[in-house]
Amino acid sequence: MGMTMTQKILAAHAGLNSVKPGQLIKAKLDMVLGNDITSPVAIKEFDKVGLDKVFDINKIAIVPDHFTPNKDIKSAEQVKICREFSKKMGIVNFFEVGQMGVEHALLPEKGLVVPGDVVIGADSHTCTYGALGAFSTGIGSTDMAAGMATGEAWFKVPEAIKFKLKGKPRKWVGGKDVILHIIGMIGVDGALYKSMEFTGEGCRELSMDDRFTIANMAIEAGAKNGIFEVDEKTEEYVKEHSVRAYTAYKADEDAEYCSAYEIDLDTIKPTVAFPHLPENARTIDNVGDIKIHQVVIGSCTNGRIEDMRIAAEVLKGRKVHGDVRCIIIPATQKIWKQAMNEGLFDIFIDSGAAVSTPTCGPCLGGHMGILAKGERAVSTTNRNFVGRMGHPESEVYLASPAIAAASAILGKIAGPEELD
Amino acid sequence: MGMTMTQKILAAHAGLNSVKPGQLIKAKLDMVLGNDITSPVAIKEFDKVGLDKVFDINKIAIVPDHFTPNKDIKSAEQVKICREFSKKMGIVNFFEVGQMGVEHALLPEKGLVVPGDVVIGADSHTCTYGALGAFSTGIGSTDMAAGMATGEAWFKVPEAIKFKLKGKPRKWVGGKDVILHIIGMIGVDGALYKSMEFTGEGCRELSMDDRFTIANMAIEAGAKNGIFEVDEKTEEYVKEHSVRAYTAYKADEDAEYCSAYEIDLDTIKPTVAFPHLPENARTIDNVGDIKIHQVVIGSCTNGRIEDMRIAAEVLKGRKVHGDVRCIIIPATQKIWKQAMNEGLFDIFIDSGAAVSTPTCGPCLGGHMGILAKGERAVSTTNRNFVGRMGHPESEVYLASPAIAAASAILGKIAGPEELD
Repeated sequence: MGMTMTQKILAAHAGLNSVKPGQLIKAKLDMVLGNDITSPVAIKEFDKVGLDKVFDINKIAIVPDHFTPNKDIKSAEQVKICREFSKKMGIVNFFEVGQMGVEHALLPEKGLVVPGDVVIGADSHTCTYGALGAFSTGIGSTDMAAGMATGEAWFKVPEAIKFKLKGKPRKWVGGKDVILHIIGMIGVDGALYKSMEFTGEGCRELSMDDRFTIANMAIEAGAKNGIFEVDEKTEEYVKEHSVRAYTAYKADEDAEYCSAYEIDLDTIKPTVAFPHLPENARTIDNVGDIKIHQVVIGSCTNGRIEDMRIAAEVLKGRKVHGDVRCIIIPATQKIWKQAMNEGLFDIFIDSGAAVSTPTCGPCLGGHMGILAKGERAVSTTNRNFVGRMGHPESEVYLASPAIAAASAILGKIAGPEELD
Repeated sequence: MGMTMTQKILAAHAGLNSVKPGQLIKAKLDMVLGNDITSPVAIKEFDKVGLDKVFDINKIAIVPDHFTPNKDIKSAEQVKICREFSKKMGIVNFFEVGQMGVEHALLPEKGLVVPGDVVIGADSHTCTYGALGAFSTGIGSTDMAAGMATGEAWFKVPEAIKFKLKGKPRKWVGGKDVILHIIGMIGVDGALYKSMEFTGEGCRELSMDDRFTIANMAIEAGAKNGIFEVDEKTEEYVKEHSVRAYTAYKADEDAEYCSAYEIDLDTIKPTVAFPHLPENARTIDNVGDIKIHQVVIGSCTNGRIEDMRIAAEVLKGRKVHGDVRCIIIPATQKIWKQAMNEGLFDIFIDSGAAVSTPTCGPCLGGHMGILAKGERAVSTTNRNFVGRMGHPESEVYLASPAIAAASAILGKIAGPEELD
């Protein structure tokens, strides 16, 4: 029986010729990731074992991005634990405020993940790197500790769902609309412990940033990972960001999938996920009249340069509605500077938006834009659970940067086509 | 007996020909200010009275700048109270995230204070506007409520201390060094309930931004207010920012001062205030070897465009020390954009600093750079009390942007002259 992309990567990292769904394997890790919330717990576990070194100082990344720049004493203490551990162990990839970015935007940008890698991260959106044809998945802090110690992790080989994409997205439709459409279709447990494998000619019509957005939200369908075939765009991206050698794995012709979907990108409309689950997807022509108080454009889902460009295209020459705070958060220092140098910040500031330094911040109710009771936000982030961005009686509507920006202008949920 | 600048302004606003120190007077207010911490308390008091309107919708400013963009649910609720009250009352000068800046930088920039004004603000650093030749002072939330209702406030006419400035500050010496030198000299209660009146030829050598910094910290010597004579620089500033008519008050020749100092600006060295009081001033050649963990450049004291330029001059072509987080916070959206357009942000980002959206944030331990136990910060802010910027066992060293930037590079408290 043939193998899927994910199965091939896992087999190679387990030193096996083949693996089957359900099989328990131990795989070598190319990268172990943690942030300022999860790393301190992992470090505590690591310290219990009494080891004086990590398995590889180049294959661990600690990114204090969630509550930084430190929002309070507790977060300052958490980051201090990360900093001191990284220094003590000689961990190369610790990123301080000023170097720091949102972890899942930062690692690919720094060339720390390449196709064919196995990556674990103590953060659920670690699945982002599937955009590069890597196997990457979120794990708990204890697994992070074990990974830092041994450079290995146990996995149950996942089954896979095939998403064959065809066609080309229309104007104002991007990766966010595609993944919200899919989650709307299969539900938040539609891919539970499965791989979501994206193939087909339609993938070529998606930019790398679109693919990062789609792979990022695989976890929102319950998936173990999301993964894209490597193509010319992937190769170009990797060449630009990394010097590491890599292997592009392709699914066998006779690979087995537990289900398969064919999705015509031409037919996908701009999509919004209503509170309080990402599966509550509605197309923009079906949202009704919903007044909003805040817009957030950023995060590991949609804080990349293309997202900034789309937001600027919509905001240019227009003003943010008087009842709305529009907070724009480029995901890394590099994206921040690029957006600035492209003139996008001039557009943002002139429109009445605020531009934050990189942080996860509001996405998980951390800081930099928390909602009061009864307030509604349109956000380009990935989760809209109850109280996710603040008060338990606030609401988060997930959408693309295009919809977020248009909503900021009109003061209600809207697409750019509703603007003059 | 003649009157001081402050006494003349108060007399004019009380409808009296003259006033004496110690006299209780009721003065008309040109501006009543509150922020997201103090306004909700004032609004609650205001609502108790049952009034349905404020005395003048143009003479109240509500600036949610302290814990914004909202750092948590509580701050979101506080801002919501400010927002809803402003809307209900028709208050013109409510500033939302995206328009918002640090209040004491924002009001002069928006032309809301001009020479000769009487301004009260429910924030201790309201004394900043003395740089414009206005009488301005910090009051409590109850006084803010009464001010919003009646447009008047009771004052005890203050005695005054005269600071006659001469000479010209040397390179790397600015307003911050002057005021830290003075507070070091007279102590944190050296001007208790008095006016600090700045006169003399030396004033002309100080930029408006220097004067804002000096007046801002008058409260750190316990003063009721700090005030500068109006000169060509003041007139130019006011002309650029406001269309309001104004009166420039000058002290009478025979005005009485309870004490007088002559300060030669030529002799002032770059100065640092050690923990935990602004009066613990030491010149830069006397600081010793003090390792630091964070640098903050911003606030109502030193977050203006000249401060940004000085920081950039020092940081240009250099790198922030690996052990230091350097957080730069332009005080308003206008300063933010100007700094960006002057290329200063390119310098900041290339050096490894983070640039925040405007906020008071770390100055008062709010967010955007809180210190862990044992950490030390060099900060361009105005207070270094125990736990001011985070953990009770952290330390804040107050200094100019020049010293802050040089310290960021060297990882210890240092002046720019110590750089290669």
